Amino acid sequence: MTEFELIGRLVPNLPTNPTIITGPGDDCAVIDVGLPADYLLFKVDAVAESVHFTRSDPPEKIGRKALARALSDIAAMGGWPVAALVSLGLPAGFEPAWVEALYRGLNGLAAEHQVAIAGGETIRQPGGASLSVSLLGRVEKERCILRAGAKPGDALFVTGELGGSQGGKHLDFEPRIAQARWLTAHFKIHAMIDLSDGLAGDLRHLLHASGLGAELLVSAIPISREARTAARAAAGRSSAKPPLLAALTDGEDFELLFTVASGDAVKLLDGWKIQFPGLPLSCIGRTRSQPGIDLRDLNGSRPLNVTGYAHFQEQ
Amino acid sequence: MTEFELIGRLVPNLPTNPTIITGPGDDCAVIDVGLPADYLLFKVDAVAESVHFTRSDPPEKIGRKALARALSDIAAMGGWPVAALVSLGLPAGFEPAWVEALYRGLNGLAAEHQVAIAGGETIRQPGGASLSVSLLGRVEKERCILRAGAKPGDALFVTGELGGSQGGKHLDFEPRIAQARWLTAHFKIHAMIDLSDGLAGDLRHLLHASGLGAELLVSAIPISREARTAARAAAGRSSAKPPLLAALTDGEDFELLFTVASGDAVKLLDGWKIQFPGLPLSCIGRTRSQPGIDLRDLNGSRPLNVTGYAHFQEQ
Repeated sequence: MTEFELIGRLVPNLPTNPTIITGPGDDCAVIDVGLPADYLLFKVDAVAESVHFTRSDPPEKIGRKALARALSDIAAMGGWPVAALVSLGLPAGFEPAWVEALYRGLNGLAAEHQVAIAGGETIRQPGGASLSVSLLGRVEKERCILRAGAKPGDALFVTGELGGSQGGKHLDFEPRIAQARWLTAHFKIHAMIDLSDGLAGDLRHLLHASGLGAELLVSAIPISREARTAARAAAGRSSAKPPLLAALTDGEDFELLFTVASGDAVKLLDGWKIQFPGLPLSCIGRTRSQPGIDLRDLNGSRPLNVTGYAHFQEQ
Repeated sequence: MTEFELIGRLVPNLPTNPTIITGPGDDCAVIDVGLPADYLLFKVDAVAESVHFTRSDPPEKIGRKALARALSDIAAMGGWPVAALVSLGLPAGFEPAWVEALYRGLNGLAAEHQVAIAGGETIRQPGGASLSVSLLGRVEKERCILRAGAKPGDALFVTGELGGSQGGKHLDFEPRIAQARWLTAHFKIHAMIDLSDGLAGDLRHLLHASGLGAELLVSAIPISREARTAARAAAGRSSAKPPLLAALTDGEDFELLFTVASGDAVKLLDGWKIQFPGLPLSCIGRTRSQPGIDLRDLNGSRPLNVTGYAHFQEQ
C-alpha cells in the first residue's frame, strides 16, 4: 500500500468543522477564523533521517530544508508565513552541537521570511532523527490558490528547472514565496501546487483536483543541468535515468506549477522576465477536458505513463 | 544534557515577530493575528514508540493519546481547539489496519471536542513509529492564562488525582478543557499549567515563570489509587516508589495546576463541587515570595528536592 492509498482510506473519516475551507488534499489546510480579509494556512511537514537527509549532510542544511519544505507549501497557496513550531525526534546519544547547528540553519531561513519560531519540543526517538515543522500562514481570501480551479485550455507554467534535486538542490532550494505573491498580485492564477513528488505526479494531483487532463510539450520542459549531468554519469548503468524522465519524476524540485488562462500567458512571461530575471519560467503545455496526460514532441503525441515518486511504498 | 538544558540553549536564538504574544516556554504559543477579541493558540506534541507507547498498546488509544496531550495544553491556556494536523512516522512494513485503528481513536476524540483534522502526512521513519499532532486553538484575550502571573500568597489547586498514570491513565485521560473554560469564566485564574512532567517539575515551571516559591501541604496532595497500588505491588523491590513520591514525580497526569487569590479559594471549591461532582479538586498549598518548594506535614517543613520526570536524558 502506498502513502496515497493509505491516505485515500483515512481522509473520508476525518472529522471537520465549519472553520475549514479546505481540508486534506491541498498544499495547506485553509481555515477561516473570522478575519475580515484573510484565511489562515496550516501545514505540517517532516523530514526523517535516511529518507530526506543523512547523518553526513550538514545539519544547518537539514534544519533549513525542514522549514523550506513547509514554506514551499505556503507559497503554493499564494500566502505568507507567520509562525512555526518544531518537533525534533532525537535518538539516544545525540550531539547537542548537531542540534544547535540544525537550528542555526532553520533560524536563518525563518528570519529571512519573518517567521517566528514560536516553540516546539524535543523527544527521544529510537532509530534515526526526524524533524517536523508545523507552520501557520496567512493569505488574502481572493488570493488563496487551490489545486482545484484549473480550466480547460489553461496554460501550464513551471518555475525553475526540474530533476536532479538529490545532487544538492534538495538541501538548498529557495521557497518561491516572493514569486507566488507577485503572481497572485498581478494575474488570475487558476490553480497552483508545489513540486515535491515530481512534475508527473504533482501535475496529476493538480489535474485530478481540477477534473482535467493535459498535454505537455517535451521541448518546453525545463530540464536541470544536474539531471543531465547525473544522466551522463550513470550512462550504461542500470540506474541511468534519461534527463527528461528525471525532470518528470525526480522528487523535491520545490518549484511552482500553476495555470492561467491562455490569453494571459504572454503578458505573464513578459512581466516575469523583468521581475525575476534570474529564474526561468516555462510554459510547458495546456490543460484539456480529456483526462490523462500526453507528451507531445516532433514524432507526435504519446501518453505519459510514468508517475511521480511515491514517498511511501510498502516493503 | 537534558531536554531542558538543550532547550535553554536554543530558545534565546529563535527568531520572533510582532504577532507573537507568548513564544517558547508556556503550554502553547500565543499569537495575535488581528482578531478583535481572541488570540490564537499553537502547539505541537509528539509521541514515540518505546517512549510514550508500545507496539502492544491498543492503537486506538495511542491515536487518542497523541491528540489528548495537545488538547491538554490548550486547556492549560484556558482555550478551545479548532483544527489539528497529524504527522505520522511509520517504519517499513507497517500494518495499514494499525494505522486505521490509530486514526479511529484520534478521530473519536477530535469529534468529541469539535476539532477538525485538517490534514497531515505520513512519512517513512526507520526505527519505531511516532505521531506528532499540531493543534491550533483559540482563547479570549482576557481569558488567556499563562504560567507566569501567580502572585505571592495565591492558593494552589490541582484537579484529579496524581501518580501512577503509567498503570493505564496515560492512554485514557480526559483533557480538562471544560474545566478550564469554567474556571476562567467564573474566577480570576492567575497562572495555569498542565501536569505532564509530574507535579514537582511542573510546579517548578509555573513558579519559575512567576518568580515565586511555594509551600505544599503533604496531606492535601491527592494521591491516586493507582500510585498506592503500584507502591504495594513493588514493596521491598528497588523499583518501589512511595505513593507520595509517585504523586510528586510520576509523569503524564494531564491534570491542571493553577493559582487564584486565596480569598477566592473557598468559593471556587464550592462552585467546583456543584459543577464537576465526579472530579476532585484539591487546594494543595500556597505560593510565596521566598524561592523553592517546601513540603509541610505534622513533623514540620522540609525542602522538596525531587524533580519531575525529564523527558530526555543524555545516555
